[in-house]
Amino acid sequence: MFTLNLTPSFTDTDALGHINNTCLPVWFERARNDLFRLFTPDLDPKKWRLILASMKVDFLGELFYGQDIEIKTYLERIGNSSFVVVQEAWQNEKIGSRGEATLVHYNFADKKSMPIEGELRKALTAHLITTEN
Amino acid sequence: MFTLNLTPSFTDTDALGHINNTCLPVWFERARNDLFRLFTPDLDPKKWRLILASMKVDFLGELFYGQDIEIKTYLERIGNSSFVVVQEAWQNEKIGSRGEATLVHYNFADKKSMPIEGELRKALTAHLITTEN
Amino acid sequence: MFTLNLTPSFTDTDALGHINNTCLPVWFERARNDLFRLFTPDLDPKKWRLILASMKVDFLGELFYGQDIEIKTYLERIGNSSFVVVQEAWQNEKIGSRGEATLVHYNFADKKSMPIEGELRKALTAHLITTEN
Amino acid sequence: MFTLNLTPSFTDTDALGHINNTCLPVWFERARNDLFRLFTPDLDPKKWRLILASMKVDFLGELFYGQDIEIKTYLERIGNSSFVVVQEAWQNEKIGSRGEATLVHYNFADKKSMPIEGELRKALTAHLITTEN
Repeated sequence: MFTLNLTPSFTDTDALGHINNTCLPVWFERARNDLFRLFTPDLDPKKWRLILASMKVDFLGELFYGQDIEIKTYLERIGNSSFVVVQEAWQNEKIGSRGEATLVHYNFADKKSMPIEGELRKALTAHLITTEN
Repeated sequence: MFTLNLTPSFTDTDALGHINNTCLPVWFERARNDLFRLFTPDLDPKKWRLILASMKVDFLGELFYGQDIEIKTYLERIGNSSFVVVQEAWQNEKIGSRGEATLVHYNFADKKSMPIEGELRKALTAHLITTEN
Repeated sequence: MFTLNLTPSFTDTDALGHINNTCLPVWFERARNDLFRLFTPDLDPKKWRLILASMKVDFLGELFYGQDIEIKTYLERIGNSSFVVVQEAWQNEKIGSRGEATLVHYNFADKKSMPIEGELRKALTAHLITTEN
Repeated sequence: MFTLNLTPSFTDTDALGHINNTCLPVWFERARNDLFRLFTPDLDPKKWRLILASMKVDFLGELFYGQDIEIKTYLERIGNSSFVVVQEAWQNEKIGSRGEATLVHYNFADKKSMPIEGELRKALTAHLITTEN
């Protein structure tokens, strides 16, 4: 599991007084930086090997400006060439949001998905948390 | 069904050369403005009556800077106090993204969900498109 | 002069109830699209020929969600290889913000500024509004 | 002087491969959080006492995704009710951007600017760096 602490900006709030929903996909993307490094260690966009197939965010409670937020990032499922990342946004010991992102290991030159194998698979598996019995 | 034409900004692109995934939730929110007016005709945030419970975006193809994007917005399901909005982002006659947002009719003073009834239900139903047989 | 009408998003507001200051640079960039087309007619980022050297925004009044905003864009000064764009954000017949952006005609391959000449200079000059006597 | 380390997000890049200009006002606002606390210690937006009168950003060099950025924040001038904040964005020991923001000590209930006095003036003065001889 990866954890990232981030500080909300005033602009992240909206007229309802709390954090706007559109910030969560941005924060979750930022919190995937550590995960991205498993694919592209120096994060050079020219060597990018991932595409986002889908994302889902459940808004479970309000998040506020003025206090840090902890994003927990882990994997829930690793398929042949894709995997599901779960992300949780916590503030004051309460979960505010839970996200799921499906990413595909991808070769941009060939426009083809690539299998997740060997060391890469091992590295991803280390962040796998299964919630099933 | 509501339709909105929007023009991407250069900042909406990312280093992969296309529109970044985090723009879609922002665009879909903007395209819900017409829907929001059914609840709050003058869009005054002090009279707001909706919360977003969850959203999902499927990335089906690339979207690019330099050409307008059409967002189609319609309802897929209307429950007692919540409803599901489907949104599609089209560019050059191809769908690039499909989103689903679950919104709840909500009373911020009482912190309670409210039933969708009468004229409001009728107005929402006019935008309902069921895909089932 | 170019004009662009844009519709604020709910996320553009902040907890003070009005449009957050950080939206203006985004809106002004979007309103420069027509200007960008004078340099790169199809807006293909691979053929980009401009860099932003500096920007300034004066916040003259509040802007609000719920009503369209008109952005007026014109040039104030054209130098040898750079020029100054002035942009005004109007809502309800009141100016809310005034921006200035200094852009440089630039060759990314050579990493050198390029003179503004010929047809390009003529096209830019058509949008020049001098406020001096 | 306040310093903030921040990690760029992939979405902060644009199709030119570097950080888009519109990120800087957002980052500079975030880096003013410590300064905001001198006016509103718990950062509660309901007790807000500042408005942004203008901002200026000079783009001095490229900033990139993949490495942290350090924002240095200090004051350059303190007037009767307003002050000028200077902010620098550094990456790899090179300055990429320099911003200036003019903020006004403001009473939102009375819609009036307020003098900067006593302890508040002292606290601000501690972050004043004058570059004059």
